[in-house]
Amino acid sequence: MMTDHPELPDSRRRIEAAFSPCLTGRLAHSLADLLQAHFQDVTASRGRVLNWNSPPENVALARKWLDGQPLDAAGKRDSFADDVAERFSALVQTILSRGNNLHDPRYIGHQVPASSPLAALFDAVGSATNQVMAIYEMGPWASAVERSVVETVGEQLGLPRGTFAGLITHGGSLANLTGLLTARNVRVPQSWESGVARPGRSPVLVAHADAHYGITRSAGILGLGTQQVLRAPLDDRRRMDPAQLDQLLADLRATSTPIVAVCACACATPIGAFDPLEEVAAVCRRHDVWLHVDAAHGGAAAFSDKYRHLVAGLDQADSVVCDAHKMMFVPALCAFVFYRNPQHRFEAFRQDAPYLFDPSTPGETAEYDSGLMTIECTKRAAAYGLWGLWSLFGRQLFADMVDTTFDLGRTFYEMLIAAPDFVPLHEPECNIVAFRYVPKQLADSDPDRIGEFNRTLRRRLIESGEFYIVQTNLDGVGALRVTIINPLTTASHLSDLLDAIRQVGEAILAEPSQPTSAD
Amino acid sequence: MMTDHPELPDSRRRIEAAFSPCLTGRLAHSLADLLQAHFQDVTASRGRVLNWNSPPENVALARKWLDGQPLDAAGKRDSFADDVAERFSALVQTILSRGNNLHDPRYIGHQVPASSPLAALFDAVGSATNQVMAIYEMGPWASAVERSVVETVGEQLGLPRGTFAGLITHGGSLANLTGLLTARNVRVPQSWESGVARPGRSPVLVAHADAHYGITRSAGILGLGTQQVLRAPLDDRRRMDPAQLDQLLADLRATSTPIVAVCACACATPIGAFDPLEEVAAVCRRHDVWLHVDAAHGGAAAFSDKYRHLVAGLDQADSVVCDAHKMMFVPALCAFVFYRNPQHRFEAFRQDAPYLFDPSTPGETAEYDSGLMTIECTKRAAAYGLWGLWSLFGRQLFADMVDTTFDLGRTFYEMLIAAPDFVPLHEPECNIVAFRYVPKQLADSDPDRIGEFNRTLRRRLIESGEFYIVQTNLDGVGALRVTIINPLTTASHLSDLLDAIRQVGEAILAEPSQPTSAD
Repeated sequence: MMTDHPELPDSRRRIEAAFSPCLTGRLAHSLADLLQAHFQDVTASRGRVLNWNSPPENVALARKWLDGQPLDAAGKRDSFADDVAERFSALVQTILSRGNNLHDPRYIGHQVPASSPLAALFDAVGSATNQVMAIYEMGPWASAVERSVVETVGEQLGLPRGTFAGLITHGGSLANLTGLLTARNVRVPQSWESGVARPGRSPVLVAHADAHYGITRSAGILGLGTQQVLRAPLDDRRRMDPAQLDQLLADLRATSTPIVAVCACACATPIGAFDPLEEVAAVCRRHDVWLHVDAAHGGAAAFSDKYRHLVAGLDQADSVVCDAHKMMFVPALCAFVFYRNPQHRFEAFRQDAPYLFDPSTPGETAEYDSGLMTIECTKRAAAYGLWGLWSLFGRQLFADMVDTTFDLGRTFYEMLIAAPDFVPLHEPECNIVAFRYVPKQLADSDPDRIGEFNRTLRRRLIESGEFYIVQTNLDGVGALRVTIINPLTTASHLSDLLDAIRQVGEAILAEPSQPTSAD
Repeated sequence: MMTDHPELPDSRRRIEAAFSPCLTGRLAHSLADLLQAHFQDVTASRGRVLNWNSPPENVALARKWLDGQPLDAAGKRDSFADDVAERFSALVQTILSRGNNLHDPRYIGHQVPASSPLAALFDAVGSATNQVMAIYEMGPWASAVERSVVETVGEQLGLPRGTFAGLITHGGSLANLTGLLTARNVRVPQSWESGVARPGRSPVLVAHADAHYGITRSAGILGLGTQQVLRAPLDDRRRMDPAQLDQLLADLRATSTPIVAVCACACATPIGAFDPLEEVAAVCRRHDVWLHVDAAHGGAAAFSDKYRHLVAGLDQADSVVCDAHKMMFVPALCAFVFYRNPQHRFEAFRQDAPYLFDPSTPGETAEYDSGLMTIECTKRAAAYGLWGLWSLFGRQLFADMVDTTFDLGRTFYEMLIAAPDFVPLHEPECNIVAFRYVPKQLADSDPDRIGEFNRTLRRRLIESGEFYIVQTNLDGVGALRVTIINPLTTASHLSDLLDAIRQVGEAILAEPSQPTSAD
């Protein structure tokens, strides 16, 4: 029970409030109501998808709260608690009213899902109790949960049970960096200890020409140099071409150029193209080259009987990245790195930290110290959301979500084909579709004008809050792009999207000013 | 309202349950009760601090849930919701019952706080709505909140308003890597584009001899090589010695060795030693060397009138790391990087991602795209907890927590001095204290035996669940170490800790077997 202790100094009252179990419970109940009401509105499309406010306006408001009058701890304890509860509610409402509503089915944007709110509740348990791992004893259950999902997800990807190793890290970029760091350390001997400088040719990284920018960044971070990334040629569906890769690797071997890795994609970001992994793996084996697969988005296809064929061969990669916070629909960040050869799990990092890693720890326990495998020392219990969702609904839920959203990619493509004023730019393999709106008036315009018109249109559309979609650049020309990554989105929303694009486009074309300049 | 739709396939029922606003609200209310009861027990020390179970036992249980029977979606919708709610509660209780209870005041362990549960509730809003940033429009409010706390925390550290830049990333290791990557790119020209290999001497990194292992790891990751880390000599309080640093830098300049940075600590991990930053900064200026300060733990001293002097000079560093998830008592992970020169904010990374960074974005908006400054592309709304706590209680709360815990460091030291059977190993500057228990029977033993005895004792103590403390290695000999980082810990708990150590120690010494072997 909360009772008044007038003798307590203000500092103690503030601390006790910030750590009060009663207040935590009270505020958590209030949060439950706020979240439920929010999601009821958002999933029913009662407001705007993106709440657009300019950065300076939002920053000024966020800063106003920080610079404002803090709550007065000097009064009666109950009224202080009331004040905290009231302000908490106001702050949460501010957060909820100014975001991008990914859970609105009209959010059809980046490769970031409308995540399951139930997964977020499991995450909140980890956050509230601050179970951080690095060493097993600091988060024994969090460490065990991470290990258990590393096992089950790896097995789902086709890696034979008990034969591989893996870890979870904070995002796909970091996961790719970790996998490529391991490849560099293994394939460029002594590079961890002595650096990458050495006599002879500098090491190169061979990457899918459309690989995520994080791959080139990794080369920059790892001391290889971004210019040392060679782009593997693509076929007409923007997939890595095994024959051309074979030739490229042969040429590199002929000049004794060290090769850190080949980096393939499942799938690549611009149009969601899946590389032919079995053929790529065969080429890499032939030349004894490390194969890294960025399956951040598409790895989850392995859950689906219908779409598993897209990632056939994933089990032959030396390192694989797969983001649960994409197509497994958990909140950011929860990214996996898998090593086919479990001996590689300790190759990325090596260190001496006596205050942390205790030599008296029993050997089998040190094996569970996640900090030995991840760049993070202190790490969030990032697997709770996935573990919770899987434990509730089984692995079938992940198959359901892949099937639903990948199927809709095909549906949307067929809508585009059928519409005379839309041009799909590829046949989709998954839930990513790039296209352009080309109304009659622009049918004879040059590509740049069409590209700029589409970009202007998108910005107008998203700032209206009616839909959220993204843009991309294909062969130098702007285009529209959707990722259907909210399982509440239906074909009817996609049809409405085309109408909304038409409306905004017509309004732009009707304007007396330069119709295609960026706003 | 939940009504039954018998026509829905199971896959749709599962998805609707995983995204149901009603179920989210219901489960969140259940979570509120579970968390309140948990924290009531834990803060009152009603159970064990660390719930020790062996890794294989925990992993088997975590895996059992994953491999078990998923809930049956085929029945009536209401009963399916009941099943989900019931299993959710069982899963959360499993998580809560098997963790390390950082909120028990007898947790006096690693540099990981008993974080404010209220901060976790703000984090949960970000997690539930999955506001991820990378680009401003994907998390406009999350981006604004990040910017606002970067400003206020930077100003608190002494950086003049409007003159600096900063970012938030997932942990101190990543923050240090980001700062040192920037230093490498700026101080080793073309290393981002062409790699670090070049004619002449290889670049070195000069680091505090007790720097966190993440610093040496950074050298390994960045392609410099871990052997290229030169240890700056320390004084007798394990602080970087400016005169010896001056000599070291002069020698390096004399041989034209490129210097990436000097890495100082505020404070270093083993005994919490704060480097004399003003003098170190003056030496770095004299030799035109980049100064990076790892203030992950101690940066928050700047909030306290009493302890601010420990970080005087922090404003003169080129890059500074400060973890809010340490002494600002928010849940992991929320780490800051600050650049004194704001021009450096885009030096760490450069990329071309047309599907992400839209050329039609108004210029001032691109400035707020966090992905341009962080290794993460998709990123959590990691600042919500800090922003919420600060908005509720004002900056004074952070001063309160620093004062409370740093003061207790001194109190504990005085207890150790007064106890004939304990040996403090240094005079503490903050809330980190290293010491040994040396009972009469061992007073004449060799240091190794005493070190091993202390390690064995610690393992026995933490597995009992009575207290959680850590161990370290000072001058090659094992020692006990506490970080007083739960503001609910009092002097009385510290006194009880000494008694508990005595009891466990006496029990070990009374055993007939080898008393000092690791168990």
